[in-house]
Amino acid sequence: MKRAIYPGSFDPPTNGHLSVLMRALPVFDEIVVAIMENPDKQPMFTAEDRKWLLEQSVPAEVKGKIRVRSYCGLVADLAGEEQAVAIIRGLRDSLDTDAERRMAHMNEALSGIPTLFLYATPETGHVASSLIKDIVKHGGRVDAFVPAAVAARLHRSQS
Amino acid sequence: MKRAIYPGSFDPPTNGHLSVLMRALPVFDEIVVAIMENPDKQPMFTAEDRKWLLEQSVPAEVKGKIRVRSYCGLVADLAGEEQAVAIIRGLRDSLDTDAERRMAHMNEALSGIPTLFLYATPETGHVASSLIKDIVKHGGRVDAFVPAAVAARLHRSQS
Amino acid sequence: MKRAIYPGSFDPPTNGHLSVLMRALPVFDEIVVAIMENPDKQPMFTAEDRKWLLEQSVPAEVKGKIRVRSYCGLVADLAGEEQAVAIIRGLRDSLDTDAERRMAHMNEALSGIPTLFLYATPETGHVASSLIKDIVKHGGRVDAFVPAAVAARLHRSQS
Amino acid sequence: MKRAIYPGSFDPPTNGHLSVLMRALPVFDEIVVAIMENPDKQPMFTAEDRKWLLEQSVPAEVKGKIRVRSYCGLVADLAGEEQAVAIIRGLRDSLDTDAERRMAHMNEALSGIPTLFLYATPETGHVASSLIKDIVKHGGRVDAFVPAAVAARLHRSQS
Amino acid sequence: MKRAIYPGSFDPPTNGHLSVLMRALPVFDEIVVAIMENPDKQPMFTAEDRKWLLEQSVPAEVKGKIRVRSYCGLVADLAGEEQAVAIIRGLRDSLDTDAERRMAHMNEALSGIPTLFLYATPETGHVASSLIKDIVKHGGRVDAFVPAAVAARLHRSQS
Amino acid sequence: MKRAIYPGSFDPPTNGHLSVLMRALPVFDEIVVAIMENPDKQPMFTAEDRKWLLEQSVPAEVKGKIRVRSYCGLVADLAGEEQAVAIIRGLRDSLDTDAERRMAHMNEALSGIPTLFLYATPETGHVASSLIKDIVKHGGRVDAFVPAAVAARLHRSQS
Repeated sequence: MKRAIYPGSFDPPTNGHLSVLMRALPVFDEIVVAIMENPDKQPMFTAEDRKWLLEQSVPAEVKGKIRVRSYCGLVADLAGEEQAVAIIRGLRDSLDTDAERRMAHMNEALSGIPTLFLYATPETGHVASSLIKDIVKHGGRVDAFVPAAVAARLHRSQS
Repeated sequence: MKRAIYPGSFDPPTNGHLSVLMRALPVFDEIVVAIMENPDKQPMFTAEDRKWLLEQSVPAEVKGKIRVRSYCGLVADLAGEEQAVAIIRGLRDSLDTDAERRMAHMNEALSGIPTLFLYATPETGHVASSLIKDIVKHGGRVDAFVPAAVAARLHRSQS
Repeated sequence: MKRAIYPGSFDPPTNGHLSVLMRALPVFDEIVVAIMENPDKQPMFTAEDRKWLLEQSVPAEVKGKIRVRSYCGLVADLAGEEQAVAIIRGLRDSLDTDAERRMAHMNEALSGIPTLFLYATPETGHVASSLIKDIVKHGGRVDAFVPAAVAARLHRSQS
Repeated sequence: MKRAIYPGSFDPPTNGHLSVLMRALPVFDEIVVAIMENPDKQPMFTAEDRKWLLEQSVPAEVKGKIRVRSYCGLVADLAGEEQAVAIIRGLRDSLDTDAERRMAHMNEALSGIPTLFLYATPETGHVASSLIKDIVKHGGRVDAFVPAAVAARLHRSQS
Repeated sequence: MKRAIYPGSFDPPTNGHLSVLMRALPVFDEIVVAIMENPDKQPMFTAEDRKWLLEQSVPAEVKGKIRVRSYCGLVADLAGEEQAVAIIRGLRDSLDTDAERRMAHMNEALSGIPTLFLYATPETGHVASSLIKDIVKHGGRVDAFVPAAVAARLHRSQS
Repeated sequence: MKRAIYPGSFDPPTNGHLSVLMRALPVFDEIVVAIMENPDKQPMFTAEDRKWLLEQSVPAEVKGKIRVRSYCGLVADLAGEEQAVAIIRGLRDSLDTDAERRMAHMNEALSGIPTLFLYATPETGHVASSLIKDIVKHGGRVDAFVPAAVAARLHRSQS
């Protein structure tokens, strides 16, 4: 049983997140999508809401291979607890890479579990949750950047 | 059977290559190390020599999970031919990332097979085959940067 | 009538901003300098003050081609409202580029209007509004980094 | 008459080049696509062939606004000779940016004409002429990355 | 008497900081480690505590060449006040470099004193004070990343 | 006696090189400018010519603190031979940094001598010997980018 964890804040989940998840799926027997809770940050959606949005956004035929959970703690500890063979992270561009590299080294030093990176697909490489939130705040539409369930929820919040 | 290919020129293999290979191994059932032959470049070692050096450098207990071969063609074609679920590549720093991202996108567009990246370990993140060759050319010692079999071969070439 | 918008926070305007504006000017018939208001951030100067400082800093002979306004909303919406053919942004170095690229893609996806980038001149490539504010806070002089009107205002605030 | 030059080697022209050209077009009255000849490099196509391929790839309705020519010399000299208000260049990612920044500064120091950059669209951000040539050399198909006329020519060269 | 200042927040001091300090030491007659106080940020440790932790972490045999002090103001002013010939800063990767370059240019413009950079050693290149604090907050151990005195203090704060 | 070496190809020396040299000078008792000879590359100027050009370009009043020599071998070996306390290198931007970091780590692993980096001044941060050569080849003037003695020599080669 080769399991990976895919940690992130997913606030909200974007097409970029889904693309990383779906493309990594054939490599593993199970991927645990881990919503990391950060008590110091005020999220747009609760962890429970983000879990629901992720579950709505995953295609039915692969649901058996994906488990969504939330976690409050270190990624390295979660990776050990889940007996994962790898941590998965998406990369967009150089802006991500050095920060991700530092975290990957720390996580591997603490847990012995390496991080595997996938580049975002070209179509999603510029999609960041923070920009999505900004567009929503100003009344713009985000259908092109997030799964349908997330778009529906975000646009409802505007009215 | 989850197989990955790990393409590169490995001219010569370094501790960085070995570290990427060994850390990716638990994720897959088999990794095919693919020595890519480039008719336009004059290598230090023949593909056959590089194959032998890689085989000498892999620990005995994991030999059953690693196959070394050479290939002259596109990485995307080899990945399809080997029915790989993933292409593996090591990343050192930002200098690597954009070039690797372009290649990963092209390979995935041609073959549908994604590239998974591992960062080099901190101890090997500065080790490049080209720097190794430069040190050897000027009579320096490279024991700290390459597997023992490679160091022996390189130092023999100096005398 | 080829109009561009040049959005930013301009808090305060620097020689870097002025250099981008003046060098882009020959390309367009009019440039609208758009002071973007962000209700979540506490600026040093009010939007009105920044407008006044920008107008003081622009050479008299090109004033007819430059309009300064403030805006609270999405850059993409403003670009459409102003019927701009392009959005202008300055780039200093790699630190800027990936974040700017993501925003440019989002803005073009939302509005169909591309972003054109100019590199800061060598003399101003290290000048950031945030560093200016830091120097002012500690009583340093910033004459070399900002237009005369801005320096006068900043130094007055120190006494 | 606001004219820009768009210099490059275009060996061969890609969808990335076409996308930069078409998106910059509304900003200018004319864009001169300048095929830079470099006597030190062995191109895949002659300058004449590249000119023909570019002309075939430009949509008929904008042909009046685009002129294709070749040039052997400095970009700065050509920009002056063409009385251009700007030099246009595409950016893909950080790999491009520092080299482009240095060239832009040199060109502006020599000619007084600034360089305006557009980011490649997300779909073309990983397309590089060098990768195209590599795929063609190994018998792969490049329809997805280059204009139809270029693909036809490249695939003919394979048989 | 060739003196350098080594400014930073050191909240807490890490093996990365110590490695930069020790490797720069042979170049200078004295290095002043300057704990920069930032009234806008809430540190983990007081400036006094950070001073004590740094002094505990420096090997006895070089104590005579190192002076630790705190400072509230501009690095450029401190460098002048200490009659330093250079400012020292560590670099980890590209994430650091552009921000550091801007600050170095500003500091040299204000004081005439250049900044000299050392790369972190490979073993410490991923160690950031912010990641350390995160691990400590979640009950993890940081012995591998910080000097013994700092680890003791951090782990005590967990119980 | 604190000596540093400043290795490079200096083909030709530029204002960027001179700026790094002059700003590092107050830190050391002597700086050895080391022209590295690379038998695999065809330089524009012989090592002897580059030595002469460097010596002409250094201000008379600091000549006693600067020694120019050529070397064919590893920088690490030269640093040891000269009993240097540091290797000096200039950085322009991110394009330089990762390659320089790898070399610095290799040199320190081989010799125990660290590399200290200075950023090029804003005015010279875009000046690269390769661009200079390109301008000269096409008959352009380079007075603004290189010392007077170098410009005289380069312009003479054009006629």
